[in-house]
Amino acid sequence: MKTHLECIPCFIKQSLEAARMATNDEGIHERVIKEVMEHLQNISFKDSPPELSKDVHSIIRSITNSNDPYKKVKEESNENAKKLYPTLKELVNTADDPLLAAIQLSIVGNVIDFGTFKRFDINDSINTNMREKFVDNGYSRFKEVLNNSRSVLYLGDNTGETFFDRLLLEEISKKVKQITYVVKANPVINDALFEDAVFAGIDKIARVIEGDAGQDRSTPGILLKFASEEFLENFNSADMVISKGQGNYESLNLSDREIFFLLMVKCPLVGADIGINEGSFVLKVK
Amino acid sequence: MKTHLECIPCFIKQSLEAARMATNDEGIHERVIKEVMEHLQNISFKDSPPELSKDVHSIIRSITNSNDPYKKVKEESNENAKKLYPTLKELVNTADDPLLAAIQLSIVGNVIDFGTFKRFDINDSINTNMREKFVDNGYSRFKEVLNNSRSVLYLGDNTGETFFDRLLLEEISKKVKQITYVVKANPVINDALFEDAVFAGIDKIARVIEGDAGQDRSTPGILLKFASEEFLENFNSADMVISKGQGNYESLNLSDREIFFLLMVKCPLVGADIGINEGSFVLKVK
Repeated sequence: MKTHLECIPCFIKQSLEAARMATNDEGIHERVIKEVMEHLQNISFKDSPPELSKDVHSIIRSITNSNDPYKKVKEESNENAKKLYPTLKELVNTADDPLLAAIQLSIVGNVIDFGTFKRFDINDSINTNMREKFVDNGYSRFKEVLNNSRSVLYLGDNTGETFFDRLLLEEISKKVKQITYVVKANPVINDALFEDAVFAGIDKIARVIEGDAGQDRSTPGILLKFASEEFLENFNSADMVISKGQGNYESLNLSDREIFFLLMVKCPLVGADIGINEGSFVLKVK
Repeated sequence: MKTHLECIPCFIKQSLEAARMATNDEGIHERVIKEVMEHLQNISFKDSPPELSKDVHSIIRSITNSNDPYKKVKEESNENAKKLYPTLKELVNTADDPLLAAIQLSIVGNVIDFGTFKRFDINDSINTNMREKFVDNGYSRFKEVLNNSRSVLYLGDNTGETFFDRLLLEEISKKVKQITYVVKANPVINDALFEDAVFAGIDKIARVIEGDAGQDRSTPGILLKFASEEFLENFNSADMVISKGQGNYESLNLSDREIFFLLMVKCPLVGADIGINEGSFVLKVK
């Protein structure tokens, strides 16, 4: 997906939020915003938002002298999701269609996000929104492909959301043994890292790999041009690819291969691209 | 009020909106955003938002080669408010307390705004929000001062809102004969100009003056340092000053003289400054 002019104020708003997470020094907040604005004057709008976001967050980390401004909120997300997990698991186990319930809950987990500016209540999402706002653009195809797959590549998104992914990975593992779960090599926004996947117990169900090649190539949404060898190998050879979140949608929606995108739409431009309303929980196949 | 870092993304969002009103040329939209970002790198946050907004809108007008990007929406606001006026007048006439009803409706008129990013439905505001969300921080003082005043200075805000102001000006004119109504000398956002006050028939009730000294000194919110001689004379000598909207609150809230601020709070920072929730309709005296 290309970047729109509307993304600019959103990048700046996010920069301020990240700077405030990293330090209380208002002089540094101002410097971050001003340097981000300087940087954004020379971007190309042909690049996708995750690519531009990479550089914006690199500026933030450099000026705030913080390798991971979102560390604290990620820890909180991990703890909160861990507490929720048994309830979620029970919801899946008692559902008429456990696979569908696990898909829906994994999308609900995508509510946990510090990269966009709609904040949603996770309990509300579980209780009231899950069915109402679920847009099914591919569940029958999802089942069909899953039943015929021997390998699944699953791209994770945010920290804490990992526990919601685990629910779906557990359902998938009833049918497929070779599962690979993708995290980021380095901190970017609140995206899950290797340690977060391990914290959620995903390493017991799937092989966990870093999707990007590291060295400041971590983008909120895996870009093929920055991807690790291991990722590319899996991406090209896996029978089924499942992608979580807006970032991965923005970076991979133009790819040629079939991908099942599971995401909550948190931005009107992504909604317009998919053709559905902001706030929807979507399973989309392409 | 000083400018906050949060104002930056808001300025940029507004610049994009204004640029799109002025032209369909996407290259120009991009140039506007980039030049506004360049400008914002060198601002002082000690200046108030209306002062910074003046320069931002000057850049927009210059790059889009449009003297008044909001011209069309202002015409629409004028026509819509003109149609509403008889209904509003009836609401005032049949109210238990016509002065209070006119105050409340004049604040409802402040919903018409293109300078902030909460868009509100004016009919909803009249029917359901007017009483529920009205925060009275000074009606008894308002009545007391009005009853002892021989001259009133009334600072208008947006185009169309002028018809809502007329309701209150008509109630005021039952007690005070010497009323002065303030508009902007030049276009800035959708603020009312002389012709808009005349369109709303305000020149029949009040003397209409331009609050700023013109020549690119029109700010969304009258700043004393850019004010016209005529404004300053009235501001210093009037028995009562009534100020409409957030812009005038941001530019005059630190003034020494007593001012009755009537506004809808459309921004969390203004809300925090006043100590009330965003979305409130406020009569505040200081």
